[in-house]
Parts: sequence; structure tokens; C-alpha cells
Amino acid sequence: MVADRGRLIGVWRGAARMAAPDPADRGLAYGDGLFETMRAHAGRLPWWPRHRARLALGAARLGIAWPDEGLLEVALAEALAEAPDGVVKLVLSRGVSARGYAPEPGQPVSLLLSVAPAPAPTVAALKVDRLELRLGVQPALAGIKHLNRLEQVLGAIEVGQRGLDEGLMADSEGRLTCGVRSNLLVRLDGRWLTPPLEHAGVAGTVRALLLASWSPPGGVQVAELPLAVLARADALLLSNALRGILPATRLGERLLDPCPPGLDTARAVLAASHPAFCEP
Amino acid sequence: MVADRGRLIGVWRGAARMAAPDPADRGLAYGDGLFETMRAHAGRLPWWPRHRARLALGAARLGIAWPDEGLLEVALAEALAEAPDGVVKLVLSRGVSARGYAPEPGQPVSLLLSVAPAPAPTVAALKVDRLELRLGVQPALAGIKHLNRLEQVLGAIEVGQRGLDEGLMADSEGRLTCGVRSNLLVRLDGRWLTPPLEHAGVAGTVRALLLASWSPPGGVQVAELPLAVLARADALLLSNALRGILPATRLGERLLDPCPPGLDTARAVLAASHPAFCEP
Repeated sequence: MVADRGRLIGVWRGAARMAAPDPADRGLAYGDGLFETMRAHAGRLPWWPRHRARLALGAARLGIAWPDEGLLEVALAEALAEAPDGVVKLVLSRGVSARGYAPEPGQPVSLLLSVAPAPAPTVAALKVDRLELRLGVQPALAGIKHLNRLEQVLGAIEVGQRGLDEGLMADSEGRLTCGVRSNLLVRLDGRWLTPPLEHAGVAGTVRALLLASWSPPGGVQVAELPLAVLARADALLLSNALRGILPATRLGERLLDPCPPGLDTARAVLAASHPAFCEP
Repeated sequence: MVADRGRLIGVWRGAARMAAPDPADRGLAYGDGLFETMRAHAGRLPWWPRHRARLALGAARLGIAWPDEGLLEVALAEALAEAPDGVVKLVLSRGVSARGYAPEPGQPVSLLLSVAPAPAPTVAALKVDRLELRLGVQPALAGIKHLNRLEQVLGAIEVGQRGLDEGLMADSEGRLTCGVRSNLLVRLDGRWLTPPLEHAGVAGTVRALLLASWSPPGGVQVAELPLAVLARADALLLSNALRGILPATRLGERLLDPCPPGLDTARAVLAASHPAFCEP
């Protein structure tokens, strides 16, 4: 049984297993690291290659070394033994270094593994709205899943205060970008469109899967979307690696199509790729 | 003797002293917290009211509770006993909560105190240049000293790669904002100007002191500065709470005035406010 709050599997600094995170870890000092939150199924991580690829992209972007492969394998196996059908969270930080923003070269990276239960089945109604909070434009950090998540924390607070299930975020230049914890697909003029993630946002695993393998009526493509398009959207899909694909049923005061064209095939693509998303 | 790498004083979760940071601390998970790095003198923190005010502003902005006053006092006293003339770093995080960006209400905040030696006396020459990296525009986080510091980490890496002593950063809309680890004062047309910090950047203690108490020739004021003004600047001052006020001596290939009008009075204002900055 996995506790609600999640459960620590282990902390490593280089190859050494530690009792706890180092107080001087740069993950804590500066958010200088990356993470992945992954859904397990029957003791496996079907999307590990996707999560690993994004983690590797982030590590390359930030100049963080890659952890020891053997250690990573052993640590993930331990997490999967503990939560074979739960959620596995992996944090990779640049490790410890002397005070100051400049990293100290050659320091071992830190790993932190924890597990949590799979999310509860989704409610039928899903109310979204655009948030007041905008995302900063930062091409150097866009797309990757780094530990600087205050914008998402503030976004989640706004979502809660407004009684929403998810919030839609635009960047500081007014481009619709993503949900607080999801990627967005917008049904507009008979096509599915999803914002590029070169200015802000995280490039999600489900989004990538849909762009590669889904052929909905009218097609799906990446397109810059000014916030104003929301007024004309017929339907919205939210995607993330823990909950899969969810249609928003309300945008502000407006009802959206809860079964838009292509939702069935999107879910079939998802289920074929990851068995945790097979309909019961 | 304080080790070069800094030394942990203690970690607290609410009122409880902990052996180490909690692996589920939101400071580590999301950079969901704040910090202050303060220069001590003779076992005191002369600028504690300034640092405390910024920390309180940040806590209010992020909705993080204020730590217990008695605990804060005891913890700071312990740090000052260990490093009476060093640097005291205080981290305040939102504490532990369940997985997900939304904070769990009512959880105790975390405190982390560490100390390090005072910075070495400054080199005479100080070479700066504008960095390629831009800062994201984020009014919700501008001015406060939060733990989401990847932009500064990447900026410090660029500074190192280019052999600079400090890098000048503009925001994504081209407004000159700050140095990687300092605020900026620009000498332009016989006046000192410093950028507003409502879009990005950290509102520094020395900058605030100078705006309140310094009367240089031509005056000092806050003004939006397009990056292009750098080509016309006669002199640049960099300020931060650990190193005080430093004139940049080179901007790219161009030499700057190393003793610009007002530097002497700026340093006098500084020394009158904080005895660690008295000239030897």
C-alpha cells in the first residue's frame, strides 16, 4: 500500500545512497534540476523512453550530467517494486556545490525517487478558464521539465481560488500555451491545434504521442494561438502523463463539446501506447 | 573557522529541528520558497530589517506563512555565533505537501540556515557584458528573492564561458534589468539610472538604500532602460548585499569610468549603513 502523500524510495548523490537530500543541494537552493512524473503499469514504465528522452534533453539544455545508468536502473526497479501500478517521480538535480549561482564543475548529480498512488478516476465534468497569471517567455527553459515551478504553483493556487479544475495559461505576449498541469489541444474550425512550446510550457509525453500517431477528423497540428481563439473553440482536450486525455466540459461560462470529433481515436492511441489508459 | 563550502546551521520544519531537508519539501520539488543571503558584522546582521522586509514581501506574494518569530531569532543567533563576520543564508520554503502543484493548506513552513565566509576583497578590474540569455517577464515573481533561479544559473554559466566577471541581463522585451547577481546603476547623460524591477529581477537591499539615501551629481532615479542605452553609458555600478558597490571597468571591449561621479558618496552611504563595508 502506497501512502497518499507519496513515499520516498531513495536519495543518491552520485553512486552513494544518502539518508536525505543534502541541505546544499542546488535543487533546493535554486531549483537547479529536472523531474519526471511517470505512470507505472504492472511493474513497468511503458513510457520510460519518452520520459527519459525529455529528461536527457533537459539535462543537455542545463548542462547537468547524466546519472549512472546502472544506478538509474536499480533505483527505478526499486520504485516499481514498491508501486507497480502507481506513480513514480524522479528528480535529477545538479547536486551540491559551493554557494553562488555558478555550478562547481565535476560534482556528482543527485537523484531522488518517490512513489505515489495512481490518480483517482476522473470526474465527468471538467471546468477550465483562462488564468490571470501569465507565463514568462523563456526559450532557454521552454519544453523541458525543470524544477523552477513557481508559475505552476501560483497557477494552481489561482485554479483553486476560482473553483476550476484546470487553468489555461498564456505567455506574457498573449499566446495560449498550456494548462497548469497539462498540455492543450484546441478544436478550432474543424481542426485540432496545439500551441508550440518554444516560448514557455512543458512538452508533454501525451502531446508528443498524439502529434505522432493520432489522425483525427481535420487533422492535428502545432500552431501559435492568440488567447482570443478560446472564444471560438468548440472543444478542448487536456493531456498529461498521469491522467491521459480529458475533455474540458466548460470554459468559463460556456459549455464545450464533451465528446468532440477524434476523442475516441485519441484515447485509442493512448491505450495502445500505455496499458494503464485502457478503458476498464 | 567556516569552511569554504559553507556550513549547515540547521533545518526546521515548523518548530521541529530536523536532521536534513525533507525529500518532499516543496523548495526542492518546485523551488517553492524564498531566500536571503546576508552579510554579518561583529555577530550582528545590520541589514536584517531590509532582508526581513523583502522576505516578508515574498512570503505574502507567494502565500507562504511566516515562520515562528522566536524560532527565527534563535536560529539566526546560532548562525551569527558560528559566522559573526561571514555570510548567513536563510531559506524559507512552503514546507512539505502532497504531490502536485497546489499547496496543502496549513502545513508548517521549512527553514534552512547556513553560513559561509565573507567574500574575498574585490578585484580592481571588473569586466561585464550583456548576456545572450534574457529574463522571462513575470510580474508575479519580479522583485522578490524566490528559489526559482535557473535563469541566474544559466546566466552564471554564460558569464563563466565568456570570461566575464558579471553579466548584464535584459528581459524578453529588451529592457535592461540587472546583473546575474547584482543590481545595476547606469551613468547616462550625467545622471544615475536604475531599471525598475516590476517585470523581472530582484529588488536588492543596496539598490533600495541608494535610492533612499544617495544624492550623487545629477541625481539617481528609476527608469526603464532599453538595452541600447548601454552603448552610451559612461559608467556602471553593480550592487549586492555581499559585495557592496562595484564599478564595472569594462563593458565588452569598451573601457568605463572606474571612478565615476558619486561613487565615493555611494560608498559612504553604504559604510554608514553597514560597518562591513567601511573601507579598511
